[in-house]
Amino acid sequence: MTPRAYQAVKNCQVIVGYKAYLRLLDSDLSGGLLAGKEIISSGMTQELSRAGKAIEKALAGHDVCLVSSGDPGIYGMAGVILELLEKKGATEIPIEIVPGVTAASSCAGLLGAPLMNDFAVISLSDLLTDAKVIEKRIHSACRGDFVIVFYNPRSKKRIKPLERAWQILLKYRPPQTPVGIVRNARRADEEAILVPLKDLLAVKQIDMGATVIVGNSKTFLNGKYMITPRGYERKKTS
Amino acid sequence: MTPRAYQAVKNCQVIVGYKAYLRLLDSDLSGGLLAGKEIISSGMTQELSRAGKAIEKALAGHDVCLVSSGDPGIYGMAGVILELLEKKGATEIPIEIVPGVTAASSCAGLLGAPLMNDFAVISLSDLLTDAKVIEKRIHSACRGDFVIVFYNPRSKKRIKPLERAWQILLKYRPPQTPVGIVRNARRADEEAILVPLKDLLAVKQIDMGATVIVGNSKTFLNGKYMITPRGYERKKTS
Repeated sequence: MTPRAYQAVKNCQVIVGYKAYLRLLDSDLSGGLLAGKEIISSGMTQELSRAGKAIEKALAGHDVCLVSSGDPGIYGMAGVILELLEKKGATEIPIEIVPGVTAASSCAGLLGAPLMNDFAVISLSDLLTDAKVIEKRIHSACRGDFVIVFYNPRSKKRIKPLERAWQILLKYRPPQTPVGIVRNARRADEEAILVPLKDLLAVKQIDMGATVIVGNSKTFLNGKYMITPRGYERKKTS
Repeated sequence: MTPRAYQAVKNCQVIVGYKAYLRLLDSDLSGGLLAGKEIISSGMTQELSRAGKAIEKALAGHDVCLVSSGDPGIYGMAGVILELLEKKGATEIPIEIVPGVTAASSCAGLLGAPLMNDFAVISLSDLLTDAKVIEKRIHSACRGDFVIVFYNPRSKKRIKPLERAWQILLKYRPPQTPVGIVRNARRADEEAILVPLKDLLAVKQIDMGATVIVGNSKTFLNGKYMITPRGYERKKTS
């Protein structure tokens, strides 16, 4: 968490967020950073309702924090709140989007340096995006030889998008292509795993808290590190 | 800067980095955060020499910080240092890559919420990557309808890659596609500019300190904000 984000949470009167994320800020939701604040928490997939409540509280004159994990601007709450402000005719509310460290960054650092060259970020959740659009994007990212970062790779009920992604990836990239999987990055139970592409589906740790980074044609393993070369240097020395 | 990065700088004995970035940490390079530290600074494009000096100092038993702006794992120093460690046979040196807020995140937040859906990150610097590879990636990213984030979009001497990118973009996206340009994000002189794609090349502020974010087919302007919808919601309401 950046100092700017910490200050925003500390100075607000009302805090709104998915309960699991609020617990990361203050494990018992009252004794620490969140002491004395009005707390509005809800479960997953209730993003619109959370954003609506945040706007109501702001219109009533309170300083409100709407919390995302990672960076709120990447698959987070920034878009939902800005769209809803317009629909509710509440565009006079001053908004600050406080950027954070997104999973691509926090996970890459635990694997080595897989994002030293151009990369594509794709969410495998087909709740909000049509499965065909997702598949088309995987094809395009493969053709462009992008390193690919998959967010929301798999859940208990949603197995197929990752299977389908894996099948597409194998059409373009060798079975030995390095893949990194990071779960719960920068939390107490973080795990970082490196496997060749061919073994991706067998990694049990892939769930909604995981991020998957698939190397491009130049990515290599260097001891315990996954590295995508920045550019010509590697060519000259190999 | 995250608290983890701050602590790493505070606790090190030797700090190595591009002079302009070190000045962001401590404007006179001695009175503040950097007081009492050995400082090794050098100009741009001397990444390999900086990394080499950092390794020498670490081998001599010092705690060393090698500084990048943004996230060191995204076009930063993480890859250079890991590759060089292997070449120098110094893989026993313990390394921590401290993630940061990359320009895609810090810039997106100033424009609205352009990265709510899948996106591709492409550096337009052809110093380390062949111009043809860059062009191929722009074509692929356009075909996949990715939002595109361009790093290193233009310098005084390097005008052509952005011109070429713009020509390619116009083959796939309407001239009115929203584009956001952010310069010196989160610094005193930050600037955020929104233009339609057709006017991109005329934006004088595009230089090496700028980041350019090009919307996908669904990106729209909402008052002063650039928003890419997360998914189906927009379809239902429009």
